[in-house]
Amino acid sequence: MSAALPPTRPRRIDIHAHLFPRIAREDAAAAHPRAPWLADHGDGTGHIMQGDERFRPVQATLWDPRARLEWMDAAGVDVQFVCATPVMFGYAWDAAQAAQWAARMNDHALAFCAAAPARLRALAQVPLQDVEAACREVTRARAAGLVGVQIGNHVGAKGLDDPGILAFLAHCAGERMPVLVHPWDMMGGERMRKWMLPWLVAMPAETHLGILQLILSGAFEMLPRELELVLAHGGGSFAWLVGRVDNAWRRRDIVRADCPRLPSSYCDRFLVDSAIFDAGALRLLVERMGADRVLLGTDAPFPLGEEHPGALVDEAFAHDAAIRAKILCANAQRVFGLA
Amino acid sequence: MSAALPPTRPRRIDIHAHLFPRIAREDAAAAHPRAPWLADHGDGTGHIMQGDERFRPVQATLWDPRARLEWMDAAGVDVQFVCATPVMFGYAWDAAQAAQWAARMNDHALAFCAAAPARLRALAQVPLQDVEAACREVTRARAAGLVGVQIGNHVGAKGLDDPGILAFLAHCAGERMPVLVHPWDMMGGERMRKWMLPWLVAMPAETHLGILQLILSGAFEMLPRELELVLAHGGGSFAWLVGRVDNAWRRRDIVRADCPRLPSSYCDRFLVDSAIFDAGALRLLVERMGADRVLLGTDAPFPLGEEHPGALVDEAFAHDAAIRAKILCANAQRVFGLA
Repeated sequence: MSAALPPTRPRRIDIHAHLFPRIAREDAAAAHPRAPWLADHGDGTGHIMQGDERFRPVQATLWDPRARLEWMDAAGVDVQFVCATPVMFGYAWDAAQAAQWAARMNDHALAFCAAAPARLRALAQVPLQDVEAACREVTRARAAGLVGVQIGNHVGAKGLDDPGILAFLAHCAGERMPVLVHPWDMMGGERMRKWMLPWLVAMPAETHLGILQLILSGAFEMLPRELELVLAHGGGSFAWLVGRVDNAWRRRDIVRADCPRLPSSYCDRFLVDSAIFDAGALRLLVERMGADRVLLGTDAPFPLGEEHPGALVDEAFAHDAAIRAKILCANAQRVFGLA
Repeated sequence: MSAALPPTRPRRIDIHAHLFPRIAREDAAAAHPRAPWLADHGDGTGHIMQGDERFRPVQATLWDPRARLEWMDAAGVDVQFVCATPVMFGYAWDAAQAAQWAARMNDHALAFCAAAPARLRALAQVPLQDVEAACREVTRARAAGLVGVQIGNHVGAKGLDDPGILAFLAHCAGERMPVLVHPWDMMGGERMRKWMLPWLVAMPAETHLGILQLILSGAFEMLPRELELVLAHGGGSFAWLVGRVDNAWRRRDIVRADCPRLPSSYCDRFLVDSAIFDAGALRLLVERMGADRVLLGTDAPFPLGEEHPGALVDEAFAHDAAIRAKILCANAQRVFGLA
């Protein structure tokens, strides 16, 4: 931790950050034709590749734990939970291939965290297209030292209300493995070719869709209360639109058909991260979700992540040290069982 | 106006309400195989139909101006601007067919408003797939007495940044016809078959997409300042996500490629309605947009509209009569040039 940071500040635990391992082109090709690999340009920059295509420009902080720890020191992040970049999910592949790949990626993540076990923790990825294989990988990953699971918010047409995905979530609850739901494979992409519109428009819609699928299907009536479910990017558009959803539930029979209680009453069944980039929005998010259910998440080290982790929390709650301490640290300690 | 309303309350001008005219099945069939028509069940209820299919159950307030005025009296709405139900747009039809249809629908809307010219005003629809025909219809509609235009937020793959749609918006500015942009033809529908998810998830994403297409394409640098552009449903998810957009613009070259200024700095170039269903969200919306740029809009008479028009404004700004007066009345008077 930087000496410049005041000693009394709460620890900053960032529960939403990504990694992309140093995957060799041959290893990717052996796994699947669309499996991503890393082109390391040797100057601290690189590209995530798919075959010969450049998928995204990236920095060494994404794959090099030493570079990551330097960044964490400079940014004042004490502990960071890292998880796969969603292009690594492989949900559209043959399930056996994806299961092998997930195990290999999870081993990569553990190796990344081994550089500083007290400061880096890893969330697993799973072959979510095969519920049994996904459950097996969660159990294996937990034994291997991963501390939670990241899943995408859908597998093709199957959303979070899919019976198989719900069975998977129940398994995670039984294993005491918190689940981070991350938007991916964004809707409407053919109409959003420029300006990163899928990240700016469709990602928050995907997350909101996932939450509504859980609420309106009645899934929360069945899921174990022990499930610790964290939705990325402040839960997407959900907290902003929950009033619209409540109004629709009150007034339209087909909205409440499978959901016995007011949609907003299920806010106590999940958590969200704080990657919302606007102090007013963060305050409204905390108002809707409760201060115990918002956790620092940065989406680092991507440019669409937070540049100054925790600064938004400090700004939004400058006069409430108790809320700051919960969001920056205590909630993550509770959810992930950290000392 | 109901005698029960206190005489000093500000007038309530609702700039976002829908109508669906009493379209005969034969008239619809003559226009286009997918043209909608009204099945009036004769008991105050009906269905919007497409061919033999029931599109949506509706109430007489949607087509009968006397029923509408009774509802307005009971709800305390003094003036209401009515516009087409989006299923009437016909943007996917042959342009000449759609142009004829739009003119006929606009005549229907005028006939609806003729029941109480001081209390009902109509926004036109246009064949937006044909820019010249759309401009002609705006000019014709203005002369006929319609006071603005409603458009959908896209025409197939063409978004609000399409050069033709921008030329149309410039024409509307020249004609001093305010434009209400309404989401429709929602993305991701195949994954949202239940619980009105397209209305709860994709509609706000469509509107947000439209605003970002205008901002990130640089269109606001070219559009005339006189253009009065109102985005429905509080601008969808935009005000909630503008921090995410600003962060992306600051940090990623491809986001700012065509947009010279910080995205949030364009908030003074458009307006939004207040149909957001949550007092905290409405306060944040007013904080982001400014109290001069939020107008009462109810989405009446649909069940996903406001049940108690203006109640949310009263709740959110219980202690600020000046803001209430702006949102409920003065902003609409200014934008639409009402006495």
